[in-house]
Amino acid sequence: MLDAKRLFPVEGAARAVAVKLYAVVKDLPIISPHGHTDPRWFAENAAFPNPAALLIQPDHYIFRMLYSQGVSLESLGIPQVDGKEQADPREVWRIFAKHYYLFRGTPTRLWLDYTFENQFGLTERLSPENADAYYDLIAQKLGTPEFRPRALFEKFNIEVLATTDSPLDTLEYHQEIRDSGWKGRVVPTFRPDAVIDAEYAGFLDNIAKLGAMSGEDVGSYRGYLNALRNRRAFFKKLGATATDHGHLTARTADLDAGAAEALYQRILSGSSTAAEQELFQAQMLTEMAGMSVEDGLTMQLHPGSVRNHNLKVYEKFGRDKGADMPSPTEYVRNLRPLLNKYGNDSRLTFILFTLDETVFSRELAPLAGHYPALKLGPPWWFHDSPEGMMRFRETATETAGFYNTVGFNDDTRAFLSIPSRHDVARRIDCAFLGRLVAEHRLDEAEAFEVVKDLTVGLVKKAYKL
Amino acid sequence: MLDAKRLFPVEGAARAVAVKLYAVVKDLPIISPHGHTDPRWFAENAAFPNPAALLIQPDHYIFRMLYSQGVSLESLGIPQVDGKEQADPREVWRIFAKHYYLFRGTPTRLWLDYTFENQFGLTERLSPENADAYYDLIAQKLGTPEFRPRALFEKFNIEVLATTDSPLDTLEYHQEIRDSGWKGRVVPTFRPDAVIDAEYAGFLDNIAKLGAMSGEDVGSYRGYLNALRNRRAFFKKLGATATDHGHLTARTADLDAGAAEALYQRILSGSSTAAEQELFQAQMLTEMAGMSVEDGLTMQLHPGSVRNHNLKVYEKFGRDKGADMPSPTEYVRNLRPLLNKYGNDSRLTFILFTLDETVFSRELAPLAGHYPALKLGPPWWFHDSPEGMMRFRETATETAGFYNTVGFNDDTRAFLSIPSRHDVARRIDCAFLGRLVAEHRLDEAEAFEVVKDLTVGLVKKAYKL
Amino acid sequence: MLDAKRLFPVEGAARAVAVKLYAVVKDLPIISPHGHTDPRWFAENAAFPNPAALLIQPDHYIFRMLYSQGVSLESLGIPQVDGKEQADPREVWRIFAKHYYLFRGTPTRLWLDYTFENQFGLTERLSPENADAYYDLIAQKLGTPEFRPRALFEKFNIEVLATTDSPLDTLEYHQEIRDSGWKGRVVPTFRPDAVIDAEYAGFLDNIAKLGAMSGEDVGSYRGYLNALRNRRAFFKKLGATATDHGHLTARTADLDAGAAEALYQRILSGSSTAAEQELFQAQMLTEMAGMSVEDGLTMQLHPGSVRNHNLKVYEKFGRDKGADMPSPTEYVRNLRPLLNKYGNDSRLTFILFTLDETVFSRELAPLAGHYPALKLGPPWWFHDSPEGMMRFRETATETAGFYNTVGFNDDTRAFLSIPSRHDVARRIDCAFLGRLVAEHRLDEAEAFEVVKDLTVGLVKKAYKL
Repeated sequence: MLDAKRLFPVEGAARAVAVKLYAVVKDLPIISPHGHTDPRWFAENAAFPNPAALLIQPDHYIFRMLYSQGVSLESLGIPQVDGKEQADPREVWRIFAKHYYLFRGTPTRLWLDYTFENQFGLTERLSPENADAYYDLIAQKLGTPEFRPRALFEKFNIEVLATTDSPLDTLEYHQEIRDSGWKGRVVPTFRPDAVIDAEYAGFLDNIAKLGAMSGEDVGSYRGYLNALRNRRAFFKKLGATATDHGHLTARTADLDAGAAEALYQRILSGSSTAAEQELFQAQMLTEMAGMSVEDGLTMQLHPGSVRNHNLKVYEKFGRDKGADMPSPTEYVRNLRPLLNKYGNDSRLTFILFTLDETVFSRELAPLAGHYPALKLGPPWWFHDSPEGMMRFRETATETAGFYNTVGFNDDTRAFLSIPSRHDVARRIDCAFLGRLVAEHRLDEAEAFEVVKDLTVGLVKKAYKL
Repeated sequence: MLDAKRLFPVEGAARAVAVKLYAVVKDLPIISPHGHTDPRWFAENAAFPNPAALLIQPDHYIFRMLYSQGVSLESLGIPQVDGKEQADPREVWRIFAKHYYLFRGTPTRLWLDYTFENQFGLTERLSPENADAYYDLIAQKLGTPEFRPRALFEKFNIEVLATTDSPLDTLEYHQEIRDSGWKGRVVPTFRPDAVIDAEYAGFLDNIAKLGAMSGEDVGSYRGYLNALRNRRAFFKKLGATATDHGHLTARTADLDAGAAEALYQRILSGSSTAAEQELFQAQMLTEMAGMSVEDGLTMQLHPGSVRNHNLKVYEKFGRDKGADMPSPTEYVRNLRPLLNKYGNDSRLTFILFTLDETVFSRELAPLAGHYPALKLGPPWWFHDSPEGMMRFRETATETAGFYNTVGFNDDTRAFLSIPSRHDVARRIDCAFLGRLVAEHRLDEAEAFEVVKDLTVGLVKKAYKL
Repeated sequence: MLDAKRLFPVEGAARAVAVKLYAVVKDLPIISPHGHTDPRWFAENAAFPNPAALLIQPDHYIFRMLYSQGVSLESLGIPQVDGKEQADPREVWRIFAKHYYLFRGTPTRLWLDYTFENQFGLTERLSPENADAYYDLIAQKLGTPEFRPRALFEKFNIEVLATTDSPLDTLEYHQEIRDSGWKGRVVPTFRPDAVIDAEYAGFLDNIAKLGAMSGEDVGSYRGYLNALRNRRAFFKKLGATATDHGHLTARTADLDAGAAEALYQRILSGSSTAAEQELFQAQMLTEMAGMSVEDGLTMQLHPGSVRNHNLKVYEKFGRDKGADMPSPTEYVRNLRPLLNKYGNDSRLTFILFTLDETVFSRELAPLAGHYPALKLGPPWWFHDSPEGMMRFRETATETAGFYNTVGFNDDTRAFLSIPSRHDVARRIDCAFLGRLVAEHRLDEAEAFEVVKDLTVGLVKKAYKL
């Protein structure tokens, strides 16, 4: 059984404030401006196949932990590159239940307990003993109309949900959703890594496709930029309000036209060096900022993830299998070229994320507390957790304030975890504000304004939703 | 209305200790060994012109936050390089009041509320509605004798206040203060960046002036060093007890005489490289430490600020406009040359500051917990805040203890904020000690000794005041 | 007098849980899988000479703090390289007592107060006034049979104690302990730095000795590796279950056979470059992991200490005199070669330590939460403290969970501090779990399981004890 006051300060005065604050945001709609759910779910509205396929196999937080303790990815039925193996979903579920104790103290445990109780009415802690009963009940529910994607979307009280999409995506499922008459708002996000990062699998083919889809001549840098403009406009037409960029570093550059064209030709040649590829990514961040000034799409940067760290896992299972690792990330010097060009322009909203928490007080809050274009994204990935979110507020607020932040992102592939993730975020914000009020650093009346802004106001403004 | 127990732990046992500790330090005199107030104020003792000029325009904490939310610096009347524009101070104040909510959760808000209540008796939170009433009352008070600089100095119970001054400063205002018979103790601090950092505006002219003022031949390294010795002696004569050094990194060097002379000639040539300039600064830190061993001036190092990050702001408004950004700073390897020469010498007091909090537990506390010459400065700039000060105590104390720290610095250009800043620091120290006592990590009787040392004892000893 | 609830949360609900948890682990045996006590003590079981020699002179935490405040190492009787000077132990003790206030707020103070009260019945705080009484009583007790090393070992309820030993050590004292019939379990740990780090004093002689002791031809890389295998087997025969590696960085490499042989020949030549030496260390970490897969010895890596930072102290007093300083340490890229070779192999247990706390949430927890071979060691050295241990749990648990950690290491040269160090660690774990339970992030029944695992279960499993 979940406790109604979980995650609030234990001390009475701060807790009392947190309880009151939570009461006003608990039932506000969910704004999910950044995530990785599949638009096809909402287009086709088919039943989810089984508990393992819904709750375990898409969730790298879960299977990375199991893997770290010697559970093979094969036994969990994680899809392989060659498509060969499969695992019995009930067996997968039993393995998961047997190792549920591994998640003690992790946010995954909080999200799952919330999901079990609130979506399925399961209040006894998952264990090897009740694994089959859990499985049967969840499987049964998934067959009912109430558990179809659109019904869940509505039940979750989602006002808007953004997916993340390749610029080469036809957005057919997004089109289908719009054409269907269903009133749920699902919007795409323009994520052009596949045509900007020359190390991306199939990069040159991707560029060719980009040319074909946009009707632009991508043989020149100017044509390539116009092709990106064209695809941005297409995304915007289908509801997109933002772009997203996943780079290894936060490096930016501002080359003159000749140097940029020459660099693009080197990239197109297929024989560019790692240094040239990195510089090209740096240049493209600045170009993307410029296009955001033009078309108004909010820009997001997610740097610092060393992708596919485990070669064997990558070769057998492919990308996004829990083997991406954070690395130290520098922003102050790296962002300077872009910021000197566009940082003072209030038409640009540029949201920064990090996997390196040390930068919140040292770099990100000082930057966001000065540049009109900059805002701080919520704690990302490994830091989307009670302690991580609290550290974010503690290290960023004093320099950037609340109003240079943009509310919460769930950033998830696990659809059922969305309400639980937003609930944790709201509780931690209430806990933080509760302490500020109890320590007389903020008036209670102001805290009520702030908590609503953190839950709905700031995210709508930053993402123009 | 400020709560008497603000910033103390909310939990009862720790709070009770904090309250008792605060009672013994609350009214101790203010020792302000490092700051940026203007000695002219105390020499001339003229009235401050208006509320905006006193409270907003000199305070980069305030206008950087407003700027980050789209308020132009022009509209705030921030002085421009060409001296052209001006803003109506009442309009500036209204803009400030309208955006006062931006400071929620920041130390600026704490300092301002304290100042409004304690200096002006204004206890209703500043808002657009009461902005004019605030303005009128503050303006009226500023015209009274009680609000002249010297009267405030005395009312604030300042025992000593250090300014920060160029080696080329004639210290005429300091001389005037001394000649005036006023008993307030205002002392200069020797800050030689302008004649050590070859990138400083007018560097070569500055060197020439240094030669002229000291009567030394600055054409040779030896003469240059003697010129610095001469100016240090002059500062000391006017009351200085410390030097201060603002370098991009903490790098130090210990070149032999020939190499140092050759490097100096390269610097003098006006065509030195960035690497040579950096090495020269590194060499000069070690020379300054040597001079401190000779003349007893306490040495302070403030590294890690990337100055003038925003080119447009710099070009229009100049230095110190809230656009300096911290960067990762390494101390262990960088300080080694200096420490191997002077670190074991108890005659040297060398106080280290940082904008990179990660170094407290990793580098600064281990260094200060070993080298006799080293001491830890208080949390600096963006970290001069309740959370920042608490993190400093939590991350530095276990390795460096309390007795390798040096009390509080307000480091401010905003004269009226001095009492509020010292009050916040005292409260956070009491809060930290209150927890240690409540957790039985320190006896209460010892905490009373420690809190007095943190407030007065250690700062007087470190700065020889 | 120590308070029974020291170090627990002050707030009532969390404290109540902590108290209950502590009751079940308080008297569990001590498992000490990593430390630096002298096996000779337990082989010969002679009385400790005097209070200073037992409590002060081997404890760099103590004398580094005294040194930082101007107390000379000579006056403390710290052994010098030339063996010349000595200090009167009673005088040393008096100096220590006079400066006991310096340790306020440090873990050293907690360890000492615990030791004085629990081992010697001294409950009045040490001071200049009672220094002689303390000295006399401790000296008297040290002469009694109850204070011989083996009696203390048993009184401390140590189940197993690991020492740290050179591969060139004959392990004669370990053999003597085994031959003596005493049932105390003292085991060696294989620490091969002296034959892997080419900068180690006497490195080439060490290699020659390694050849002689193992009967292998160390003129070839293959023979050198076999010599190491031979010594590992010898250590294992005398009870070793682990190896330990102290490198400047966490860099690893995976050279092909030819390149490795060539590199070894460069190292053997005595004229290798710093870069070659670093690469050799990197290569050897991967080789050591391979040997651990073969022979089952658990592998430990302690990177990031800049040794002998203070040249004058090093020249006069030698190694390990409190002048080693931490530095920023990168793991994600550095460990990749080793992890791609052995990280997926569950036969390997590879325990990582750090002096750079920023890596817990950024690198170590993400790595250990994925790779089956990796586990997180407890907070090390300067971070073996209440705040440091709490930060470790707060920053590592959410991503790595509890079950990718390995319990506590005391890592000490100060034998009498062992019970106090384990007591602090147990209390902090109870405090952390108490908060999780009070915040409803963990069920109380689960917390009882976790706290026992943290105290005994995980360390026995990780070190195969």
